Amino acid sequence: MSLLAVGSVAFDDLETPFGKRERALGGSATYFSLSASRFHPVRVVAVVGDDFGPDQMRVFDQRPIDLEGLSHVPGLSFHWKGAYGYDLNEAKTLATDLNVFADFKPDLPPAYRHSDYLFLGNIDPVLQLDVVRQMTTRPKWIALDTMNYWIRGARPALEAVLREVDILLVNDAEVRELTQEHNLIKAYRRIQQLGPRILVVKRGEYGVALFTPEGIFAAPAYPLEDVFDPTGAGDTFAGGFLGYLAWIERSDATALKHAALMGSVMASFTVERFSTERLESVSQDEVRNRLSLFSDMIRVEDL
Amino acid sequence: MSLLAVGSVAFDDLETPFGKRERALGGSATYFSLSASRFHPVRVVAVVGDDFGPDQMRVFDQRPIDLEGLSHVPGLSFHWKGAYGYDLNEAKTLATDLNVFADFKPDLPPAYRHSDYLFLGNIDPVLQLDVVRQMTTRPKWIALDTMNYWIRGARPALEAVLREVDILLVNDAEVRELTQEHNLIKAYRRIQQLGPRILVVKRGEYGVALFTPEGIFAAPAYPLEDVFDPTGAGDTFAGGFLGYLAWIERSDATALKHAALMGSVMASFTVERFSTERLESVSQDEVRNRLSLFSDMIRVEDL
Repeated sequence: MSLLAVGSVAFDDLETPFGKRERALGGSATYFSLSASRFHPVRVVAVVGDDFGPDQMRVFDQRPIDLEGLSHVPGLSFHWKGAYGYDLNEAKTLATDLNVFADFKPDLPPAYRHSDYLFLGNIDPVLQLDVVRQMTTRPKWIALDTMNYWIRGARPALEAVLREVDILLVNDAEVRELTQEHNLIKAYRRIQQLGPRILVVKRGEYGVALFTPEGIFAAPAYPLEDVFDPTGAGDTFAGGFLGYLAWIERSDATALKHAALMGSVMASFTVERFSTERLESVSQDEVRNRLSLFSDMIRVEDL
Repeated sequence: MSLLAVGSVAFDDLETPFGKRERALGGSATYFSLSASRFHPVRVVAVVGDDFGPDQMRVFDQRPIDLEGLSHVPGLSFHWKGAYGYDLNEAKTLATDLNVFADFKPDLPPAYRHSDYLFLGNIDPVLQLDVVRQMTTRPKWIALDTMNYWIRGARPALEAVLREVDILLVNDAEVRELTQEHNLIKAYRRIQQLGPRILVVKRGEYGVALFTPEGIFAAPAYPLEDVFDPTGAGDTFAGGFLGYLAWIERSDATALKHAALMGSVMASFTVERFSTERLESVSQDEVRNRLSLFSDMIRVEDL
């Protein structure tokens, strides 16, 4: 099995009520690959500028992350500046500097074109579709993340790529805007018509809902006493979810439930510190222990 | 075992994007008792006016609901008018006419003063404390609901009654305002200092979180395709929760989890129709079937 992620590698300026960080490592491909690589090797396709140096490279080098698909081009890397209030549920974007990302045109190394699992991070759906077309064999699973910016501004392209997608991972507001349907059961039916047969709705502090043809599964978020920075939680979830599926090589409903729990556990580590700080340091034992606590928490024993 | 509920019986004018109802039966004691009486007989202490007639009485008469404590006084019953937008998460109050409720002074019939389970619906905390003081034996469980109006405007009285309470049932915003703490784990610690050893946080479409000294349990809401009117969902939950506990006569952590699921199932019926329409008609088989579907939905089978 092989797992390919396409997305952004960025520098983030982050501000929350609990502190701030400047030029911290971020981006969808970063969080995804750091999370998924706990379970399975990951190939990354993204673009960085001259400011991406040995300090950043070291973060990836400690993991089974293949950076053959990471283009280094002259200029500055993608930069995002965001701030959160106390409820931490929604980021306020203060600045977005595309920099080298403005001309990003994913070009998959030949070996990548046969990947079994493909994650299309939140980028222009035109590029997402272009990546799908570069695959010489159809991946077993194609998962896609998107956002309201593309839903509003690039719907035809988004609908074109969604026809190729198996798993859509979005938040409540995004699935409602995409389907023009408030009720999630009805929204899932509409998503199925658009292409994806599986819908994962990320709900932040309220957890995750998983819609499959076999039924609905929902789990709360792992409860944390200290949440510092929600940036990257969604991509970390996606990494845990797909990395775990690639590892266990199963695609049944039970495997998907376990993958959703694993995604939630990985995301719970990300939000405990700024940027990728906690995700970089978390050990296999910590992941295992938290998964065990989480499973106990949602289990209902017989009376 | 005996179960006593003190609260309001009201007429509601309701408006949602899906329709409207005028002078529909409502009130915390109404929803609570209709829900709890599916599991255990309920005693009700409340007040109604001349407009509460045979049509309303019939709704209660079909159930093991003891109305000896329901005062009939001259005047009009409590009246509430509210409207909801598409997200149905928050009601906009358009009118509140206390009417006979303005002079409500609960006076417990002698037999009620020995009840094993006491539910204090969302009324003035001064009255809630007065009810507790009328009990000649200390109930096994005292559960309390409140709202931001009392948290802001009657904090000393609320804190006085909370010292007597075992189970606090509130929503996210209420527990955050009461404790001045956004994080729910920290908020629970503060609640314990105030008195209640169990905290139930009602999260609407996101389900419920249960905090006990043994740990945290969280479950999603039962997913519904059609939600018409969320009025009474919280009191219906409380009724299912306490009615079920009274029925099984257990108070351990497993029993509390099952009670939370039962409360969620009962609430899912309430919101499917306006007012108490669905709650009145739901059959034991329907409750059992939905609980079974719900349990399957949140169960994570071993791999």
